[in-house]
Amino acid sequence: MKAVRVHAYGEQPEIESVPDPVPKGPMDVLVEVGAAGVCRTDLHIIEGQWADKSGVELPYIIGHENAGTVREVGPAVGNIKPGDKVILHPLVTCGLCRACRSGDDVHCENSRFPGINTDGGMAELLLTNARSVVRLDAGLEPVDVAALADAGLTAYHAVRKAVPLLHPGTHVVLIGAGGLGHIGLQSLIALTPAEITVVDRSAQALDLASELGAHHTVEATGDHVEAVRDLTGGRGAHVVLDFVGEGGTEAEGVAMTRDAGSYFVIGYGGRVEVPTIDIISREINVIGNLVGSYNDLDELMTLTAQGKVALRTRTYALDDAPAALDDLDAGRIPGGRAILVP
Amino acid sequence: MKAVRVHAYGEQPEIESVPDPVPKGPMDVLVEVGAAGVCRTDLHIIEGQWADKSGVELPYIIGHENAGTVREVGPAVGNIKPGDKVILHPLVTCGLCRACRSGDDVHCENSRFPGINTDGGMAELLLTNARSVVRLDAGLEPVDVAALADAGLTAYHAVRKAVPLLHPGTHVVLIGAGGLGHIGLQSLIALTPAEITVVDRSAQALDLASELGAHHTVEATGDHVEAVRDLTGGRGAHVVLDFVGEGGTEAEGVAMTRDAGSYFVIGYGGRVEVPTIDIISREINVIGNLVGSYNDLDELMTLTAQGKVALRTRTYALDDAPAALDDLDAGRIPGGRAILVP
Amino acid sequence: MKAVRVHAYGEQPEIESVPDPVPKGPMDVLVEVGAAGVCRTDLHIIEGQWADKSGVELPYIIGHENAGTVREVGPAVGNIKPGDKVILHPLVTCGLCRACRSGDDVHCENSRFPGINTDGGMAELLLTNARSVVRLDAGLEPVDVAALADAGLTAYHAVRKAVPLLHPGTHVVLIGAGGLGHIGLQSLIALTPAEITVVDRSAQALDLASELGAHHTVEATGDHVEAVRDLTGGRGAHVVLDFVGEGGTEAEGVAMTRDAGSYFVIGYGGRVEVPTIDIISREINVIGNLVGSYNDLDELMTLTAQGKVALRTRTYALDDAPAALDDLDAGRIPGGRAILVP
Amino acid sequence: MKAVRVHAYGEQPEIESVPDPVPKGPMDVLVEVGAAGVCRTDLHIIEGQWADKSGVELPYIIGHENAGTVREVGPAVGNIKPGDKVILHPLVTCGLCRACRSGDDVHCENSRFPGINTDGGMAELLLTNARSVVRLDAGLEPVDVAALADAGLTAYHAVRKAVPLLHPGTHVVLIGAGGLGHIGLQSLIALTPAEITVVDRSAQALDLASELGAHHTVEATGDHVEAVRDLTGGRGAHVVLDFVGEGGTEAEGVAMTRDAGSYFVIGYGGRVEVPTIDIISREINVIGNLVGSYNDLDELMTLTAQGKVALRTRTYALDDAPAALDDLDAGRIPGGRAILVP
Repeated sequence: MKAVRVHAYGEQPEIESVPDPVPKGPMDVLVEVGAAGVCRTDLHIIEGQWADKSGVELPYIIGHENAGTVREVGPAVGNIKPGDKVILHPLVTCGLCRACRSGDDVHCENSRFPGINTDGGMAELLLTNARSVVRLDAGLEPVDVAALADAGLTAYHAVRKAVPLLHPGTHVVLIGAGGLGHIGLQSLIALTPAEITVVDRSAQALDLASELGAHHTVEATGDHVEAVRDLTGGRGAHVVLDFVGEGGTEAEGVAMTRDAGSYFVIGYGGRVEVPTIDIISREINVIGNLVGSYNDLDELMTLTAQGKVALRTRTYALDDAPAALDDLDAGRIPGGRAILVP
Repeated sequence: MKAVRVHAYGEQPEIESVPDPVPKGPMDVLVEVGAAGVCRTDLHIIEGQWADKSGVELPYIIGHENAGTVREVGPAVGNIKPGDKVILHPLVTCGLCRACRSGDDVHCENSRFPGINTDGGMAELLLTNARSVVRLDAGLEPVDVAALADAGLTAYHAVRKAVPLLHPGTHVVLIGAGGLGHIGLQSLIALTPAEITVVDRSAQALDLASELGAHHTVEATGDHVEAVRDLTGGRGAHVVLDFVGEGGTEAEGVAMTRDAGSYFVIGYGGRVEVPTIDIISREINVIGNLVGSYNDLDELMTLTAQGKVALRTRTYALDDAPAALDDLDAGRIPGGRAILVP
Repeated sequence: MKAVRVHAYGEQPEIESVPDPVPKGPMDVLVEVGAAGVCRTDLHIIEGQWADKSGVELPYIIGHENAGTVREVGPAVGNIKPGDKVILHPLVTCGLCRACRSGDDVHCENSRFPGINTDGGMAELLLTNARSVVRLDAGLEPVDVAALADAGLTAYHAVRKAVPLLHPGTHVVLIGAGGLGHIGLQSLIALTPAEITVVDRSAQALDLASELGAHHTVEATGDHVEAVRDLTGGRGAHVVLDFVGEGGTEAEGVAMTRDAGSYFVIGYGGRVEVPTIDIISREINVIGNLVGSYNDLDELMTLTAQGKVALRTRTYALDDAPAALDDLDAGRIPGGRAILVP
Repeated sequence: MKAVRVHAYGEQPEIESVPDPVPKGPMDVLVEVGAAGVCRTDLHIIEGQWADKSGVELPYIIGHENAGTVREVGPAVGNIKPGDKVILHPLVTCGLCRACRSGDDVHCENSRFPGINTDGGMAELLLTNARSVVRLDAGLEPVDVAALADAGLTAYHAVRKAVPLLHPGTHVVLIGAGGLGHIGLQSLIALTPAEITVVDRSAQALDLASELGAHHTVEATGDHVEAVRDLTGGRGAHVVLDFVGEGGTEAEGVAMTRDAGSYFVIGYGGRVEVPTIDIISREINVIGNLVGSYNDLDELMTLTAQGKVALRTRTYALDDAPAALDDLDAGRIPGGRAILVP
């Protein structure tokens, strides 16, 4: 099959022909990739930032946001069959550890992560297992949903954790209305009655946010912390969702958070630095957020099928993976996601 | 009446005679102070560290951990009567704002804090209101419980928030088994089935911790992070309660926390500094903890009356307040609390 | 002032002149009634059904759904001032017991209930206290919201308790889309992403439900339990909200509930009768629901100000109270609420 | 192998030789039964009470409380190996449905229940799968824990669900301190700081309850509802756990429950019958409880290994199954459990 493989860090991946993956385990599922999202993390992988964390051996196939059609299933698979359209939870998990059994499969003790630490989905075929596949509603196509498998799922997961904090009368700030942020915004509107303020440096992103239903938008021009405090009666927001997590949003996000409120970290790259006296005297929380669980993905697909969440995507052929990566790197896909269609 | 008043930051407070406070509001309660705890925060106040935050006008009476006997109540007070023995919640709150109505009176929008931003309890009399008094069980005396009003309440509050995270099979680390920490330890034992490891620099504090029921103790001699990881199967603890919050425990506490776990900040003085990539890839939480609510104090008094929580105290006459402050400053009251008895 | 007073059970109340109530306590608030809802419970009171439960002495003024304008406040009231437009929480509570301090003021140990066990609001003036008043948003008028004070608040409260059970992909059934039910429906839409099925005997009520956003409607013509099971894949709904609670809905509601689901009782008059083997083998819950808390009412006012919840009302002069009670009794106010405007 | 099989309802099961079960699926686990609990449900099965619910084809092997040693595992099993001592979760579940993925595997959409609807564990060998086995701590033996697999797990599960309701100062009533109840009592003591009152008809059971740490005991002699109300300040308990569920405890349990409290149904045989006006005016909940999840069983094994929960058992040879069933039926195993040791 054709695949996008990284051969050396710091160099563009190659489009090449490799042997088809072969299902071996009884719970294995082989998927014909219908769409593979291109993500900023792919750029970081190629740069080598993840080399130590993942420990993956080169060359390998990248691509961790995948949807497609089931081609073949192992003998013990009963929940899915060849021909079913599916989106793939990014992790392949065991189903036996405490985390898997508690709805927290992201912290599975025995998982692998295709596209990060094993062959991923920028290819014609991808090997996964029965625990990772969410069958798509009849009205959904792989190309429409692939980028929800990781980016969208991360945004949804953070919003889902914030729901109990967001009753009528509360205020939530969303920093960064890009690829993840605009899924987060739609999830907030679908799940909570909170008043929503979106902060971004891009006027275009803010226009999209308003169109999607944000109640207030604030351009990040320097006095945006003050602007948020003004919008919240001088007290800050009950919840701040930071989809940037670098370049100063870490401190700004904490400053926008109300006493007894919570600052959710989703984007990364920077550092949270807060004196312990502020943490305790303001009784604030810093909440980490990784990608969502299988159940989160299932819920997100429900919202998508109901039309409450929709992605803006641009498609590329698999052979154009380098162009897609370049466009992403150069900021030429604002507010949307690049999708490879093998 | 006689009172301990701060006249100038950086100087010892004076023991002097001042006019008796007079109840004016219909919900006011005048209490004969039976015992006033001496706390490290009193040292910080005297040094001037709280001058800006509190904005209090000098001179004023310090003392924010108080218990005693009701002398007089306002005309609208029905829940307490002269002669009742009481412990005082540290804040005087309004009962009308959303926070007060939600069990989170510590974040009352209209509170005052005797001993911090208005006259406190190192005196013969203290003015408070009907919302702040917890009647003591017949078996309890003001001198036995006063230090639970703030220090103990803070420790209890943090533990109470951690309870839902601590089911059988979980591990909790408690850093710092001093005045607050040993109340936290007793609260953990009373409320949770978790396995408990106590970390402290003092062998004496660790002996006390073992005696109180800690399952493991670790002396903080340099390789204590490693020791905690060994005790937790290499994974860290589900919850870390940091009663120190300075001098390196901030980073150590985060390092001792398991992926998807929570680091509770209770002590202060230092800084939490964590790269956002670690916060998200490990999906950890940093949880701020201020003093507990009135309901928390009521629960803590129940545990105290049941004998599940007990303080180690050393009493001083009100005139000996300077000596008590000196002993505390010099570390001559290890694992215990100084109590002024007016 | 003019007031509607019950003099004898089984007889129509009289419209008569009585002395104005006089604020005595420091927290008292005297309100010029702008609107008083007429409720089925008023009919029950007049019939004498509440005589034993309330123990009220006759004659007394009925009316427990009130909104208006503050005329006078006691000396200790700081949260409200004469001229403010307000809606009144139905209970006058103490603010000092554990329930009041936990956000559950409905279970206050020292409450009184104007219109039930003391003089209520079908009058020109009503005496309440500072804990019961919610200030209205500038865009809201007493006549628009009065019926939310009890009926609407009860519906909202039940929905609010169900929110944690209603994630995307869940199904909720609402039995009875009358006065309370249509507030419940609007609350469900505002607070949850659940799929909503409304069951009612009235085609008109179901039309209104569809218009308000119900996803499915089922006419209660005999095979409605089966119809609900069909709509829920044969398994029943995760949550059933029963706003009728009599005439067979008790058994039907339980039958419509999915295994591990919850049946919420809101309406009353009948009996829940379930074999214990069904309760345990299906692991279902029966959840009682009384009126909501002050915080619930505050949230409901937020939703109302945002236009997410709206009442259908018909107004009557205070002198026409008997006509309003008759119209209600005769079923001449379908899907709406009668409001007295003094 | 030798096995205890039911051939006809209403007749004693036969001890006979049957073919050994053979693992076929890749996740199958074959266990040498070390101990099989004898439960009142076995008597009900033999009487035919479960015939319709289970739909099992006769003859079949009963026994749903099993522990033993792994003999053989399927090719995809990685979490357990031959020679490991294990206790078996009573259900064999799929690990793929929403319930399994949410920690609620008891409501698995594709489960089977050995000993109820397929061959069980009163035999030398039992076939289960990798999702059902909990490895035993080195200090535990199958014979010591088998009866915790279902009876104990049910009791633990109910207590676990009640934990969030049982803070210091609350009161819990436990009705029925027999086989399940005394595990429930030990679990309450291990997990909560609540004040515990045990109600039973047997003075001997109450003595055992006191010995285990119950704070109060009440003999069920007719005025026990009144006695419980006296012990709870006239208000009833925050939580009532009914391990009987028949013979009048259903109404008594509701009457012992405080307003806004919860009545947990665990035992069965009778009927819960409550007017809806009482459910709503008292805002009480009726909570169904089935057996616990795998995670519950894992936690219960932790408590058992820690010595916080212990069973009183009497052992019988497999050939003596009829005698064990008779002794149970005749009430000759008070406060304990009969265990078959093949």
